[in-house]
Amino acid sequence: MSATRYTYLGPEGTFTEAALRTLPEAATRELAPMVSVPAAFDAVRAGEAAGAFAAIENSVEGGVTATIDELTGGEPLMIYREVLLPITFALLVRPGTALSDVRTVTGHPVAQPQVRGWLRGHLPDAAWESAASNADGARLVREGKYDGAFAGAFAAATYGLEPLVTEIHDAANAVTRFVLVGRPGRPAARTGADKTSLVIWLGEDQPGALLDLLQEFAVRGVNLIQIQSRPTGEGMGKYCFAIDAEGHVAERRVSEALMGLRRICPQVRFLGSYPRAGVAQADVRPPRAGTSDADFIEAAEWLARSQDGRS
Amino acid sequence: MSATRYTYLGPEGTFTEAALRTLPEAATRELAPMVSVPAAFDAVRAGEAAGAFAAIENSVEGGVTATIDELTGGEPLMIYREVLLPITFALLVRPGTALSDVRTVTGHPVAQPQVRGWLRGHLPDAAWESAASNADGARLVREGKYDGAFAGAFAAATYGLEPLVTEIHDAANAVTRFVLVGRPGRPAARTGADKTSLVIWLGEDQPGALLDLLQEFAVRGVNLIQIQSRPTGEGMGKYCFAIDAEGHVAERRVSEALMGLRRICPQVRFLGSYPRAGVAQADVRPPRAGTSDADFIEAAEWLARSQDGRS
Amino acid sequence: MSATRYTYLGPEGTFTEAALRTLPEAATRELAPMVSVPAAFDAVRAGEAAGAFAAIENSVEGGVTATIDELTGGEPLMIYREVLLPITFALLVRPGTALSDVRTVTGHPVAQPQVRGWLRGHLPDAAWESAASNADGARLVREGKYDGAFAGAFAAATYGLEPLVTEIHDAANAVTRFVLVGRPGRPAARTGADKTSLVIWLGEDQPGALLDLLQEFAVRGVNLIQIQSRPTGEGMGKYCFAIDAEGHVAERRVSEALMGLRRICPQVRFLGSYPRAGVAQADVRPPRAGTSDADFIEAAEWLARSQDGRS
Amino acid sequence: MSATRYTYLGPEGTFTEAALRTLPEAATRELAPMVSVPAAFDAVRAGEAAGAFAAIENSVEGGVTATIDELTGGEPLMIYREVLLPITFALLVRPGTALSDVRTVTGHPVAQPQVRGWLRGHLPDAAWESAASNADGARLVREGKYDGAFAGAFAAATYGLEPLVTEIHDAANAVTRFVLVGRPGRPAARTGADKTSLVIWLGEDQPGALLDLLQEFAVRGVNLIQIQSRPTGEGMGKYCFAIDAEGHVAERRVSEALMGLRRICPQVRFLGSYPRAGVAQADVRPPRAGTSDADFIEAAEWLARSQDGRS
Repeated sequence: MSATRYTYLGPEGTFTEAALRTLPEAATRELAPMVSVPAAFDAVRAGEAAGAFAAIENSVEGGVTATIDELTGGEPLMIYREVLLPITFALLVRPGTALSDVRTVTGHPVAQPQVRGWLRGHLPDAAWESAASNADGARLVREGKYDGAFAGAFAAATYGLEPLVTEIHDAANAVTRFVLVGRPGRPAARTGADKTSLVIWLGEDQPGALLDLLQEFAVRGVNLIQIQSRPTGEGMGKYCFAIDAEGHVAERRVSEALMGLRRICPQVRFLGSYPRAGVAQADVRPPRAGTSDADFIEAAEWLARSQDGRS
Repeated sequence: MSATRYTYLGPEGTFTEAALRTLPEAATRELAPMVSVPAAFDAVRAGEAAGAFAAIENSVEGGVTATIDELTGGEPLMIYREVLLPITFALLVRPGTALSDVRTVTGHPVAQPQVRGWLRGHLPDAAWESAASNADGARLVREGKYDGAFAGAFAAATYGLEPLVTEIHDAANAVTRFVLVGRPGRPAARTGADKTSLVIWLGEDQPGALLDLLQEFAVRGVNLIQIQSRPTGEGMGKYCFAIDAEGHVAERRVSEALMGLRRICPQVRFLGSYPRAGVAQADVRPPRAGTSDADFIEAAEWLARSQDGRS
Repeated sequence: MSATRYTYLGPEGTFTEAALRTLPEAATRELAPMVSVPAAFDAVRAGEAAGAFAAIENSVEGGVTATIDELTGGEPLMIYREVLLPITFALLVRPGTALSDVRTVTGHPVAQPQVRGWLRGHLPDAAWESAASNADGARLVREGKYDGAFAGAFAAATYGLEPLVTEIHDAANAVTRFVLVGRPGRPAARTGADKTSLVIWLGEDQPGALLDLLQEFAVRGVNLIQIQSRPTGEGMGKYCFAIDAEGHVAERRVSEALMGLRRICPQVRFLGSYPRAGVAQADVRPPRAGTSDADFIEAAEWLARSQDGRS
Repeated sequence: MSATRYTYLGPEGTFTEAALRTLPEAATRELAPMVSVPAAFDAVRAGEAAGAFAAIENSVEGGVTATIDELTGGEPLMIYREVLLPITFALLVRPGTALSDVRTVTGHPVAQPQVRGWLRGHLPDAAWESAASNADGARLVREGKYDGAFAGAFAAATYGLEPLVTEIHDAANAVTRFVLVGRPGRPAARTGADKTSLVIWLGEDQPGALLDLLQEFAVRGVNLIQIQSRPTGEGMGKYCFAIDAEGHVAERRVSEALMGLRRICPQVRFLGSYPRAGVAQADVRPPRAGTSDADFIEAAEWLARSQDGRS
């Protein structure tokens, strides 16, 4: 039954599943691992799942283009939640293996730069080979193909392995951001610590188009969290921009900026407003002076009075 | 009866009266000359007149500060009409006077630079003395104090004089702009060739405040016609800005810009939207792409769909 | 001998002369009162005077257009000094006159708004008539034509009068700014509390031209002190802008902004860099981060290294 | 001997090698395939190669993060040339294989989206498995592991295969951009159709920092070709921007913009100015009015005259 199914980029035992399980509602959903981000998202488009979950950005590796491109192209989807998960690896081994026994290790290619420093210090002679996923690496260790796999510690139980070493990571702040997407609907409720995601296409031959785009935000006091260019696929030099901005579309400063963008850009895709993971309401900078909803309402009332001659 | 009285900066026989008489409704109004712009405007504030008429700008001399300051300070008034009048002078003399008889001439001080060139060429030996107004100069000629007065040709009849020479002016394009003001009410109807007048005060110590102000217009594609700084009277270096912008407050691009200004500026005074004198509707540049009312409506509909998940 | 002569807007006994005498070098100059600002400035242009001195701005009345227009048009001149003078009036009377004897008063028309409140409170029945200058008013009192003249207290001695009441003014902060102009030459030396004056003409039909102009300053962190539009005389709607900006042309941020303006504007007239009157060096906000001369030099060195491959 | 060696991302027979061989000087260089972009670039840093060659952007897939991150971090390198190569695939088979014999196909994962449509139409039942590179896939076909490999037609000879079908691609305009990097040195000579590459870090907590950055370009009339955000590795939400701009650092508008960026940004890395591939000099838009070198020179001369009083 689709309303209770969430798809995610599998297999089981990956960081994606671990991140998904941090969502309270995950406990009451059927969690279905899929072979690719497009497969996970298409299940939502087809009505076979209520949501799809995938990584969209890593603080070390950058944007996950498969996810961004699925949101940028194809049948529209919207983001309803985001999850931040610190990424630290465990070295998973078959029970009984000692560190000195480990001669071959495996893991997903993106894990390699994160564990390279640790390997150099602790297993300088171990040979690395890439696996299709961290979970797949764990499976290959269980099958005896490699001595150790780098994966999340939580994957040990699934694959009958033991975490020999944990908390392995090179970059102190490696974090991955995941999003839960669904078919277009009402955005998540406003919490006071929200973000709004968009994709914006610029017109042809407009040298200042990006500047104009940023001005639409700046004039309304809406700060950008991220801007990422992606090729449109129409040839070298044609880009669209995936943008995360502070605030919720229910805020006047945000909605006016969105309408401004809609007017000056050939295409704008609204990807949703949803709570910012890892940002407490108390930590949110208040809107710049003159851009709160109260300021918008006061200005509209002033204008109404002015147009009636009651200024 | 105040509803049929228009005050204007007198005396009779000035360019101001001539400009006022170009308004169709002037034929059915009692036109009351006043001794000063404040007097003319205060009569409106006191309910003793329906309108007041005064010059606000001359294409050679610049802004008429008495008029601007009356609109900037005091009890609010609004502009409902503007009139452009080309300024050319006649040399008025008592009947029978020949050019060779003219040894002394008079006129308002602002007339002098306009006729200086003509005097040098035609009456190099004539002595100039200033009068309180062009009309007053005419009166003094009638009384025999001077031989000639520079004034509008239309003033000749009023003072029993003859226009000896007409079409005297130095600057080819000398034009004066006049405004009809009244108590605050609904702005003049939108014609498609309109302007909107404002006074804006900037906050303290904001180096980029003027730039921010202009951005509020620019982002909505509203072009400025004029910007003029005036001291606020609170000390050297404190200014407000009298601004004329293209468009009517009934246009969305204009009203959104006004609300934006209201939000970021400590004070905004709306002085009205009214037809641009001397600009035919056909000559008006269409709003920049994305800033027509249709564009605003389409963007609002898109936003509503987006917030409902119908994008 | 022209090198020792300074002209000023006369007659003697005006605030202009008082302001001029605050300059140390005035003590060793021949101070020559002139009948008009153009006459004072033309004497400099003709080499008959080393400097000319005139009011350029009043904190209550605004810009003195005669002075601004002389700097904007005609043979170029430059500003080398500015002087601020608080404007307070004295009521000058013939010796022996008591306040109760004063029935008629006179003064320059711009004095009237400054003393109106005082008159209402202290001499509600006194009749006001305008004089050609405050000094001329004093002369007329001496001749017995009026009972009292509003002028600077310093004018009393010149005209054989007594200051009956002093420190009369309505606006608490009435200040007039005067400038000393000369033929173009090297600007005044940099003091650390300087300003730079310019006149800028915008091109035809450029809706965003004023914004572009301000961006040239803003990008280099140069704050504006004042911007004032003046008609170019080429017809209604054609303006140039007289601008005062913080900083000295010897500063890199200022000179780069000036060159930027020169490139984008059809005409720029440099009116000089000179010490800001009334602003101590200690009160000057330091240049925005990244806009000091040291920052410009460091960036130029970095660029040179980069272009040599030594980055 | 390092001066004649160019490293590139191998193995042999890839599009990278094909692109590298389009450079005239490649004919006289030892071309050394390396296992990774870091390996290829580190050889240059270590002085073991004069240049390294790698893809930096694909018009369908976007930026090649491995290459960008090598330029952004580590010991500085500079770009001296770029090459554009249209990407079309051939289906390589062992001699004698017919299309109907092809049951399994392989290729680099990024090839898959490019040939997916063709496969659906022509080999709907063929099973795809990914290879480490297109060249590696060809090798596996020669070894009999798969029936066909998608690779460049030029790879056929190297691996003893035949191109059964050529010109396979889904996106009509799939193009890959490659760069030749070397140790920092003098930039490539100016050709009139150049680009300049930079990496820019923004300061902390500056909401408008990206806008300020773009203004530095805009004020000098320098158009951006591309802007791409990359994580700095210091935690979620910290980005630097890899930017390609029109023009050569030897142009005044470009060098002034670079110095401006250097002043306002905590860090700027100059990656070189070099000829734009695929852009003829005749197709280059001339610099915006007021931003040519001649305009800069004229403005500097004007400033010098102004500072000498010769304006």
